Amino acid sequence: MNESAWNYRVSVFDPEDIELNGNRFLLGNGYMGYRGTLEEYAKKQRVGCVLAGVYDKVGDAWREPINAPNPLYTMISCDGEPLNVLSTSVKEHEQGLDFRVAVHRRSTKFATSGGNVVTVKSERFVDAADVHMIAMRCTFSVSQPGKIVVDTGIDGDVWDLNGPHLENIVTDHSQTDIVLTAVTHEQRLKIAVAEKIETDFEPLMSVITRDKTVLHHMSVDAVPGREYTFTKYASVYTSLDKDIAELPAEDLVDGWLSEEAGEGPDLRATAVNACIKARIAGFETLRERHEKVWLDRWAASDVQITGDGDAQYALRYSIYHLLAIAPTHSDRASIPARGLSAQVYKGAIFWDTEMFMLPFFLHTNPDLARNLVRYRIHTLDGARRKAAEYGYRGAYFAWESQDTGDDACTHYAFNDVFTGRPMRTYFRDKQVHISADVAKGIWQYYLATGDESVLLDGGTEVLLEVARFFVSHSYFKPEKNRYEILDVTGPDEYHERVNNNAFTNAMARYALDAAVKAVDLLGSRHPDRCRDLLAKLDIQEEMAAIKDVRNRLYIPSPDPETMVIEQFDRYLRLEDTTVEDVKSRMIDPGEYLGGSQGVASQTQIIKQADTVLMLHLFKNQYSREVKDANWKFYEPRTEHGSSLSPCVYAIVAADIGDPEWAYEYFMKTATIDLVAHGRQTVGGIYIGGTHPAANGGAWMAAVLGFAGAAYDGDVFAIDPHLPAKWESLSFPWVVKGQKLSVSITADEIRIEAAERNSASVHVRVGAVDIDLGPGQTRIVDAYRK
Amino acid sequence: MNESAWNYRVSVFDPEDIELNGNRFLLGNGYMGYRGTLEEYAKKQRVGCVLAGVYDKVGDAWREPINAPNPLYTMISCDGEPLNVLSTSVKEHEQGLDFRVAVHRRSTKFATSGGNVVTVKSERFVDAADVHMIAMRCTFSVSQPGKIVVDTGIDGDVWDLNGPHLENIVTDHSQTDIVLTAVTHEQRLKIAVAEKIETDFEPLMSVITRDKTVLHHMSVDAVPGREYTFTKYASVYTSLDKDIAELPAEDLVDGWLSEEAGEGPDLRATAVNACIKARIAGFETLRERHEKVWLDRWAASDVQITGDGDAQYALRYSIYHLLAIAPTHSDRASIPARGLSAQVYKGAIFWDTEMFMLPFFLHTNPDLARNLVRYRIHTLDGARRKAAEYGYRGAYFAWESQDTGDDACTHYAFNDVFTGRPMRTYFRDKQVHISADVAKGIWQYYLATGDESVLLDGGTEVLLEVARFFVSHSYFKPEKNRYEILDVTGPDEYHERVNNNAFTNAMARYALDAAVKAVDLLGSRHPDRCRDLLAKLDIQEEMAAIKDVRNRLYIPSPDPETMVIEQFDRYLRLEDTTVEDVKSRMIDPGEYLGGSQGVASQTQIIKQADTVLMLHLFKNQYSREVKDANWKFYEPRTEHGSSLSPCVYAIVAADIGDPEWAYEYFMKTATIDLVAHGRQTVGGIYIGGTHPAANGGAWMAAVLGFAGAAYDGDVFAIDPHLPAKWESLSFPWVVKGQKLSVSITADEIRIEAAERNSASVHVRVGAVDIDLGPGQTRIVDAYRK
Repeated sequence: MNESAWNYRVSVFDPEDIELNGNRFLLGNGYMGYRGTLEEYAKKQRVGCVLAGVYDKVGDAWREPINAPNPLYTMISCDGEPLNVLSTSVKEHEQGLDFRVAVHRRSTKFATSGGNVVTVKSERFVDAADVHMIAMRCTFSVSQPGKIVVDTGIDGDVWDLNGPHLENIVTDHSQTDIVLTAVTHEQRLKIAVAEKIETDFEPLMSVITRDKTVLHHMSVDAVPGREYTFTKYASVYTSLDKDIAELPAEDLVDGWLSEEAGEGPDLRATAVNACIKARIAGFETLRERHEKVWLDRWAASDVQITGDGDAQYALRYSIYHLLAIAPTHSDRASIPARGLSAQVYKGAIFWDTEMFMLPFFLHTNPDLARNLVRYRIHTLDGARRKAAEYGYRGAYFAWESQDTGDDACTHYAFNDVFTGRPMRTYFRDKQVHISADVAKGIWQYYLATGDESVLLDGGTEVLLEVARFFVSHSYFKPEKNRYEILDVTGPDEYHERVNNNAFTNAMARYALDAAVKAVDLLGSRHPDRCRDLLAKLDIQEEMAAIKDVRNRLYIPSPDPETMVIEQFDRYLRLEDTTVEDVKSRMIDPGEYLGGSQGVASQTQIIKQADTVLMLHLFKNQYSREVKDANWKFYEPRTEHGSSLSPCVYAIVAADIGDPEWAYEYFMKTATIDLVAHGRQTVGGIYIGGTHPAANGGAWMAAVLGFAGAAYDGDVFAIDPHLPAKWESLSFPWVVKGQKLSVSITADEIRIEAAERNSASVHVRVGAVDIDLGPGQTRIVDAYRK
Repeated sequence: MNESAWNYRVSVFDPEDIELNGNRFLLGNGYMGYRGTLEEYAKKQRVGCVLAGVYDKVGDAWREPINAPNPLYTMISCDGEPLNVLSTSVKEHEQGLDFRVAVHRRSTKFATSGGNVVTVKSERFVDAADVHMIAMRCTFSVSQPGKIVVDTGIDGDVWDLNGPHLENIVTDHSQTDIVLTAVTHEQRLKIAVAEKIETDFEPLMSVITRDKTVLHHMSVDAVPGREYTFTKYASVYTSLDKDIAELPAEDLVDGWLSEEAGEGPDLRATAVNACIKARIAGFETLRERHEKVWLDRWAASDVQITGDGDAQYALRYSIYHLLAIAPTHSDRASIPARGLSAQVYKGAIFWDTEMFMLPFFLHTNPDLARNLVRYRIHTLDGARRKAAEYGYRGAYFAWESQDTGDDACTHYAFNDVFTGRPMRTYFRDKQVHISADVAKGIWQYYLATGDESVLLDGGTEVLLEVARFFVSHSYFKPEKNRYEILDVTGPDEYHERVNNNAFTNAMARYALDAAVKAVDLLGSRHPDRCRDLLAKLDIQEEMAAIKDVRNRLYIPSPDPETMVIEQFDRYLRLEDTTVEDVKSRMIDPGEYLGGSQGVASQTQIIKQADTVLMLHLFKNQYSREVKDANWKFYEPRTEHGSSLSPCVYAIVAADIGDPEWAYEYFMKTATIDLVAHGRQTVGGIYIGGTHPAANGGAWMAAVLGFAGAAYDGDVFAIDPHLPAKWESLSFPWVVKGQKLSVSITADEIRIEAAERNSASVHVRVGAVDIDLGPGQTRIVDAYRK
């Protein structure tokens, strides 16, 4: 495996790419995301260290995650001249991300006005083994003698979209340790960032404290022919952290640390102490430990494609981004729609997580999937509040979910470009499918893992409250003897407030069914717990209503002639036109195509996969003929105004046996964070960031689409349709603790069950059923007759 | 009674008033409306002779009623100088409408550049006794000898909003008769306009035919000291007319008339013949016959107020307008929202007719009410088509109804002022209350008259199809054990697509109940007809569903604490602000306040009476306390963006015992067509015209409001709350053929039953019940204790 296959690299400095590189070179460990900016950058260059699950709201602005003070800030000067790619002559520059081990490297040759060529190299990682830690090693060398001054420390003047969030900023220091503490505006959460420095040379050292910033100030008369190295061990802690122990007295180094008042663990001491301990361990040790974690992750999740380096590269890069932002440390946070790449979209968790990211984790890292699922359980009360707010019972999950589960989404998602007035949108109040999406995530988790603990510990409660919500939301139509779900917005947000969105209704039925099944399961296996839960929710008598709605809920079915499933009632009566035609009607490039008066709203042009997504999620319930007809009908009508859309068309295209159609959509999805995107700001609002749902969608397209992998809790099915140029596709897959390795070529499918202490797995390849015992390997040849 | 009390007059010529005077001096007879323009005007001055019920559509423009060629066009010249208020020096000018007898008079003294003062007077009426006829007499005199030339005839170059509608224009003439025929663009309906002239002098006469126009050309050397008079007898016929008999051969005068080819009655001959016959009868005779009709109308409908000349005048002027446009001649036409004053609003019939005009006719002229009601019966098939179009069963009446009952309303009622794009509005598809309004009109007609023929001949069929519509539209909510009506727009159009609009639900229940009652009535009194009808509609088995929806339909009830009835689900959660505040948010004076993104839409500010209208319509079902609370709640939140709104607040204010509050709204309503309105065009579209619903609302405010009159089919109730300055209020009221005269003072109520051949009437004044026999008069004193 060559190194470049695992590296994302740029070899030139282009100021136009500062923002995008911040996303492309992102490091993260689920606790925090550190943007791929250079060390000399400040907030104007959008340096960001987004903390997962730590939200703050200032005034009427959006509530969003906070950026931690930046402990990697470093400005090196040579003979009084700051070395900064933005202002200094750059002779050579390279920025690289080794995404196999999540290490960021940078190397720049600066030419000073005095003719000195100063080479600066850095290497950093956001520690996967200890999520509070960031480590960086920086080296400089000169081509001629010069006085090098290094100002490096913690920059508390952070980039904020809707801040400032940090108040009461206090700095303190010893000779080699600096620390900055602050509190958040809204909840007065404490945050502490500490940094310890070590050098392999003997600079003159002092500490400079400026407004919001505390810096080591080091100067050395550098001579050519040697490298000067300093290493930074940084830590970030907040008062939300559950993993802070009381420090033993002997850990309270350097007396000044004990000054902090207040209850609970001493956050400042904890942060400084973590840096001291890291220093003792040493940079190399930390990095090895960090890399080990990453190598293990890849072992559990790497998808290997031979014959198509571009696809291999893009898919791995996508998986990297998922692994970098998943919360390994907590089940109180989940993955926001733009990951940990910025405060974009309020750092909120959308349906993206359940529908486009969870499948990857579920089948490669069930423990992490468990965190994601349990995050939703923790937000149940917020969902209850939202349901009550709209006059429903049960749980109506937040469209934009943060820490409490209360909905961060507003009724006015953006401004009308023509009037500048807030536009009433219906994302918050009408996208009821979110509750079903959450329920499906829980039940899929159970099916994939067999882990009943999540069902016992809140999962069934969520399922029941979601079912209750759909009972209270749906209406019965006596003359048609059916329940209907009215006035909703489906995945295709261009069409607001529609009736009987096929996707929504199918998802609601799944959720209602999952609730019934979970109660049946608990009733037989944990009767006391089940009885207690039903009593607590006072829902025993409603079970009949839940079953009734499940049984008689209307799901739009394929037209007998065309096989097309109408996306919602009367959709087919809308104007039948083309995406190009609709776009030609735009007056302002920033105008919203959907909503009440958008140019797409009264046409059949849709934002994203909707009915076609349903056909993927319920793939066994629809014939190939139906999937084929709907793909062909909806595909030309889809504007792909959401990054969630192309992967769905890829998956279903593969499902209906057209991998070449699928390939284009797969590559569009897998390269989303690699290719240029144009503007990162709209109307002064930063909308950049990574696209974890598309990252997850790339994995789905490869594994669920091309390989046709699926597990329904009973049968692990494979139904491959590989693109012609793919010689093989290999991937791991976990089924209830059994780790499978699947390898597909045009000729055969090889499945290996690595674990020797696990149950057999029922595998189905086409019409062939295989009982795959522990430790066994089976090969199915000529699978595609 | 002084003459000025019955005259609307202006004594100065102001070119700014040309358009408004066209409405204010309107003449009409239900068959046609002739705008109050001057004889020398042409289409630029909006001369219009709107024909009721004759619609035409050109291209993609609005379908609208046609304007007939103008048979009154007259241009008088003196020594080659045309006498035209627009260009000639005007020494004196007076225009007057005697609305007691519907005669229009005009008198102008022109000063020519040669120093001649030419006085021109005209008198005209649109014949109430023969709806095809218009007659005009014109007199001129000179102050010094001069050559007078009169060009008078038929101007076929008509004003059209969305035309041209008239094609194949053909003119023909004899020495004293001229005729113009044309066909409409869409349906190829024929129209013939003829005119015969007589003079009391001997001019040199010829006929001039110009493009679309045919004129008598008369010249005379006029001398001072005498008046020269000519009289025009004009007629208008269309091939929709049902009252055209085949002409006997001897009526075919002047051989040239027989040239017209084609089947059916000879329209051109009919038109010319009518003029010849009118000439034989003579102008004075025609006018006397016409005036007799008007005096009879006033005897049946005049409301007399003493102590308040302004109110008396405005109310009579309002009633005049109703009487001038009501279709006495046909049950195939009804009263459009702007009457017969112009082609505005497509000449369409709205709910205005049933809710704001029908009560006046129902209780003063039941025969005319019958025509209005039967018009709806004739449009049932259009309503069936509309229901089917939206996926419902039964009858969904047109929001904008024309001849067929198909809906003339579009999904894009106007353009967005900011983008210029058609704005999706929901008048057509969501204002389901129109079907209930129609049903209420039918049932109210039956209750008021006891006339079963309308029920037998289509009325019950409409009621059943409307009931069927509401059954198919409503949804059942099992957990609340109730039906709901979802996704509608109520009278307050600023709030689109709401659930459980109290007004709509209450009206729907009324309609469902009326259907059940009508079937019960027919079942007992005409069992065979009833059985046949139920079989024809195949609705016998649905009667249980109709009753079930009626019984369990949710009607929002007053809040136990505030007594406020929420206008629709979640209305009270909208922003609570003021009308002024909402208006201050407008950017463009022409922007629509309601709809999906209007500045009022997300606030509690409403366009017009909605819940308060319900409290009037169902006044016996709500306590004074509830009405009081809701009046006070909704009144400050009402923008009165519709002319239908103030009268409702007047009626309910009187009902709750606050006639002084009511008075202001009453006067606002009653003077609507008298006071200035500002712009008559918006965005180049003419939106002027009279306001018959407000005219009817003025009558309602006086009689249903201040007098508190009501008849429920059983009891005639009076509950007066007169404004302090009204010494008395008197009005006629018909109860099932019995003509009552009611006179109210502060001290007593006098009720007289004039008809001696009628049944007793059960009268209730406060708690006093009276059995009023035929021919009897009863006085209730000290009625308000």
